[in-house]
Amino acid sequence: MYLYSCIIGTFVFNEHLKLKEKILFNDKEIIQNYLLLEQNKELKTEKKLKERYRIEVIDITHKKFLNVLDFLKDYSENFYKANIIITKYKISTSVNEDNLIIQTIDNISEIDKVTNILVKRLREWYSLYFPELDRKIENNKDYAQLIIKKDKDSLTKDLKIKFSMGASLRKEDVSQIIELAKHANSLYLLREKNEKYLESIMQKYCKNLNFLAGTLVSAKLIAQAGSLKKLSLFPASTIQVLGAEKALFRHITTGARTPKYGIIMQHPFVQNARKEIKGKAARTLADKISIAAKLDYFKGDFKAPSIKKEMEQKFK
Amino acid sequence: MYLYSCIIGTFVFNEHLKLKEKILFNDKEIIQNYLLLEQNKELKTEKKLKERYRIEVIDITHKKFLNVLDFLKDYSENFYKANIIITKYKISTSVNEDNLIIQTIDNISEIDKVTNILVKRLREWYSLYFPELDRKIENNKDYAQLIIKKDKDSLTKDLKIKFSMGASLRKEDVSQIIELAKHANSLYLLREKNEKYLESIMQKYCKNLNFLAGTLVSAKLIAQAGSLKKLSLFPASTIQVLGAEKALFRHITTGARTPKYGIIMQHPFVQNARKEIKGKAARTLADKISIAAKLDYFKGDFKAPSIKKEMEQKFK
Repeated sequence: MYLYSCIIGTFVFNEHLKLKEKILFNDKEIIQNYLLLEQNKELKTEKKLKERYRIEVIDITHKKFLNVLDFLKDYSENFYKANIIITKYKISTSVNEDNLIIQTIDNISEIDKVTNILVKRLREWYSLYFPELDRKIENNKDYAQLIIKKDKDSLTKDLKIKFSMGASLRKEDVSQIIELAKHANSLYLLREKNEKYLESIMQKYCKNLNFLAGTLVSAKLIAQAGSLKKLSLFPASTIQVLGAEKALFRHITTGARTPKYGIIMQHPFVQNARKEIKGKAARTLADKISIAAKLDYFKGDFKAPSIKKEMEQKFK
Repeated sequence: MYLYSCIIGTFVFNEHLKLKEKILFNDKEIIQNYLLLEQNKELKTEKKLKERYRIEVIDITHKKFLNVLDFLKDYSENFYKANIIITKYKISTSVNEDNLIIQTIDNISEIDKVTNILVKRLREWYSLYFPELDRKIENNKDYAQLIIKKDKDSLTKDLKIKFSMGASLRKEDVSQIIELAKHANSLYLLREKNEKYLESIMQKYCKNLNFLAGTLVSAKLIAQAGSLKKLSLFPASTIQVLGAEKALFRHITTGARTPKYGIIMQHPFVQNARKEIKGKAARTLADKISIAAKLDYFKGDFKAPSIKKEMEQKFK
């Protein structure tokens, strides 16, 4: 007697390899049994059939059966169905922190784009009413928040403007503009929430990288690389120019200068470096980021603070 | 004795054109007096000085004085200040319905663009969790509203999906996505508010145009023309291709076909016309829009219903 299990069920054969009994899995059992099979663990159905037929040892591997038996062709439909269920399951479990990080950082970039569009319109629209404010408040977020908080009269006083060139609009005209400001502001708040959420993921998923490069830069690097794994396998020189692909290809095709830095340019360590040593700072940072990414991907210790300290001392 | 008023004040001269007395306006009086001067009405300061000096008639025009007197050069600073105040006043009163209409319709277009960006991201993000929904719900607004209202479980039931390929995310992961959906939805509602507001302006400002071409098409035409005045002065053939400038210039430079319609293509009258007569429908609609714009700009009667009826009967 032989016992054989695969993703569609458990089968019992006699010595001549003729089918004696079968238990087919229903949709819900498929994944559970698939996972047990993967781990070479005993299935419930196997236990049951073993007891019934007093089979003591299964001395034949699945693979041998696949070569020996052609009975499986009768179950092609079951296999088709089971395979789809398993594939769906595999897809669903393939979503990981990388995906969440990439979606969130992309959403943050998109919110930046969108708020810029909306506040550009807001400035133009509100300038019918109060043109003087546009130049006084350069920051978009501040602009949107200010006109929500204060009306024209108090703003005129605050900014010490004697006579505004703006039209005196009706209440309902102004309220349309304020509504737009509120929506822009609400998107700024969403961006903050997204950033906090992103940080919370990254502090668990890649705490060295997050500590060293900061949440936004780290997330952009992961998004550009495709995953933390890929980032951890990149050489430091690639990390240095990640996000500067355009300039890199220009260098390759036209012989223009090589780019000194990509995404990591946004890191204060590079940003605050003197112009002459910006390239050097970028190279050093990329080195350390490469180490941090490797530490995180291969589940190393939390060494980012000492790495950061070392890096900063080098540039004092 | 002569009395002379200008934007900076009122002056009394003797027979030899020597200054006897002056009353200079303060900042607040300037615009008020400027408006009275424009209408050739008597100023309070003139009345006062007339009584004091018993001047009966002012028989000399401002212009004559400007030629005769060079005393004004002593007041150049006053003139400079008064002119700035008047200019600001003029700018502030130059804002009219056209500006409000243009800002609002431009904002509506921008909201369309922005919601598309956000929902594109939303679809990608939520598809980590529930990829099956993306294809089932094509409309962006419906998609955003649906995932706010219903959770994955009830959507799975509604759509009769056995096993979703989506990952089972944590609550806090999903809530980030739902937040984005809420913001997109809120922008859709803002768009509706904007449209209602726009309609309320246009029903007063250009009710013939609004009735005939609809709020959105009318507003787009006014925005493209620059103002209702400009639109009313355009020939119907220009109105027909307004918004199709790219195709028009392509026609001029490369000899490609002339565009048949621009913005008015979005009007149901053109949209629902059979393909062979779409061009003809566009031409007719442009004719009628031209009439409606003229009626509105030159304060004619509300004739749009009969014009529309006539137009529709022609195409039956």
